[in-house]
Amino acid sequence: MKSLYKIEMDIRWGDLDAFNHVNNTGYLRFIEEARVQWFKSLVDNWADADCAPILAAIQNNYKKPISWPEKIHVELFCEHIGTKSLKLAHRITSTSDDNIVYADGHTIMVWVNAASGSAVPLPENVLNACKN
Amino acid sequence: MKSLYKIEMDIRWGDLDAFNHVNNTGYLRFIEEARVQWFKSLVDNWADADCAPILAAIQNNYKKPISWPEKIHVELFCEHIGTKSLKLAHRITSTSDDNIVYADGHTIMVWVNAASGSAVPLPENVLNACKN
Amino acid sequence: MKSLYKIEMDIRWGDLDAFNHVNNTGYLRFIEEARVQWFKSLVDNWADADCAPILAAIQNNYKKPISWPEKIHVELFCEHIGTKSLKLAHRITSTSDDNIVYADGHTIMVWVNAASGSAVPLPENVLNACKN
Amino acid sequence: MKSLYKIEMDIRWGDLDAFNHVNNTGYLRFIEEARVQWFKSLVDNWADADCAPILAAIQNNYKKPISWPEKIHVELFCEHIGTKSLKLAHRITSTSDDNIVYADGHTIMVWVNAASGSAVPLPENVLNACKN
Repeated sequence: MKSLYKIEMDIRWGDLDAFNHVNNTGYLRFIEEARVQWFKSLVDNWADADCAPILAAIQNNYKKPISWPEKIHVELFCEHIGTKSLKLAHRITSTSDDNIVYADGHTIMVWVNAASGSAVPLPENVLNACKN
Repeated sequence: MKSLYKIEMDIRWGDLDAFNHVNNTGYLRFIEEARVQWFKSLVDNWADADCAPILAAIQNNYKKPISWPEKIHVELFCEHIGTKSLKLAHRITSTSDDNIVYADGHTIMVWVNAASGSAVPLPENVLNACKN
Repeated sequence: MKSLYKIEMDIRWGDLDAFNHVNNTGYLRFIEEARVQWFKSLVDNWADADCAPILAAIQNNYKKPISWPEKIHVELFCEHIGTKSLKLAHRITSTSDDNIVYADGHTIMVWVNAASGSAVPLPENVLNACKN
Repeated sequence: MKSLYKIEMDIRWGDLDAFNHVNNTGYLRFIEEARVQWFKSLVDNWADADCAPILAAIQNNYKKPISWPEKIHVELFCEHIGTKSLKLAHRITSTSDDNIVYADGHTIMVWVNAASGSAVPLPENVLNACKN
């Protein structure tokens, strides 16, 4: 799979839950941050009324608990390009050791027209980034 | 699939993100709340050092955006009982109309010994709730 | 002080932090929810481009830790009406016993024109609600 | 006031609310992160059963909305040392320009014995850091 984007993020103490590990929702927060940073890197105005990305589905494997403090890498990969959807794989690792894999999985993105709510074709810049 | 538990939750304005809909992490927050309330209904001390539930994987289909204000139902179902894991299906609907399905999917739960980190058999009360 | 609005809220397990109590940010989330519900009760379209409420300052006293599960009351009071600001006092209590006060304090609200960023006079419906 | 600690933080897209600015709770999240990182810099085991820091009160002035993406500085200052409490001032600025002040205010911290719930004297390492 083609690597599309990779970011570094700091875990915040507030990401922890009562089990003293990053809460399950935190992983989706990290994947979201990689995703929107990637979108913004492609086009500054990445979400407007005509065409905005929407998360259609997510699958995440929680492989290891994440403690605080910690710095992570979140990497996105192109897993499949459809006509009106994009399957992005993700992998969350420790910046100190890429063999420490905290999570992997994938998301399905679609782009919609906010007014009509109906799906629109993938933006050209997204397509190009996935293909090149 | 057997229905295990169903809760009612109020969407908070703070669950919204910059798109003015409930953020993708919010859905996992709602599923988590149903899950821990279910655990607590089975045994008051549902997570101790010897045996605590851990989320191993999640799959969620975002079927409709959720606005504020709104009141939702989160229902959990037993999809599969393994020796050391449990597959729980979920469905999030509007309390005003059960045909408005905001999300469905499933989670894979395992139970671990906090000290050793290794998986332990499903707690008896969980097993019984899934079977009966 | 005149009571303006009172809501009931369910604590979520996800509001807890690593100390197993509601995180300090949660209290502001609860106060926010009371505030926006109050605004919406006064006028359906409570925040538009011409005139939207902005939090200018907050002061909160954390009087007791909040555990999960728990149901709380969040009550807002009119403490002071300025020409371009409103001081709202708040009190968070347990629904099981109003003598269990989890927090009190106040917020200073201003209303701004989103385009110009400058403060505008308090909306008439807000003024009336505070005075009557 | 003596500067005690200063951290750099990345705003996350998920910190935004429906107004497309960092939500009011986010500011407390940032101040919390500076606080716990400071505690951890003083002693690795900064919160145990005998002695853990608790937030008693917070006052925050929201001076400017924060957009995404943005990188901020959060700086803590010693405003007052009591026998059983510590008043920490804070200031949140843009890393691109220290004159862009997003927020300032203060927090009152106390240290408690988790078992008894009663306040204990300030830890020596905290006292020393504030005095030296």
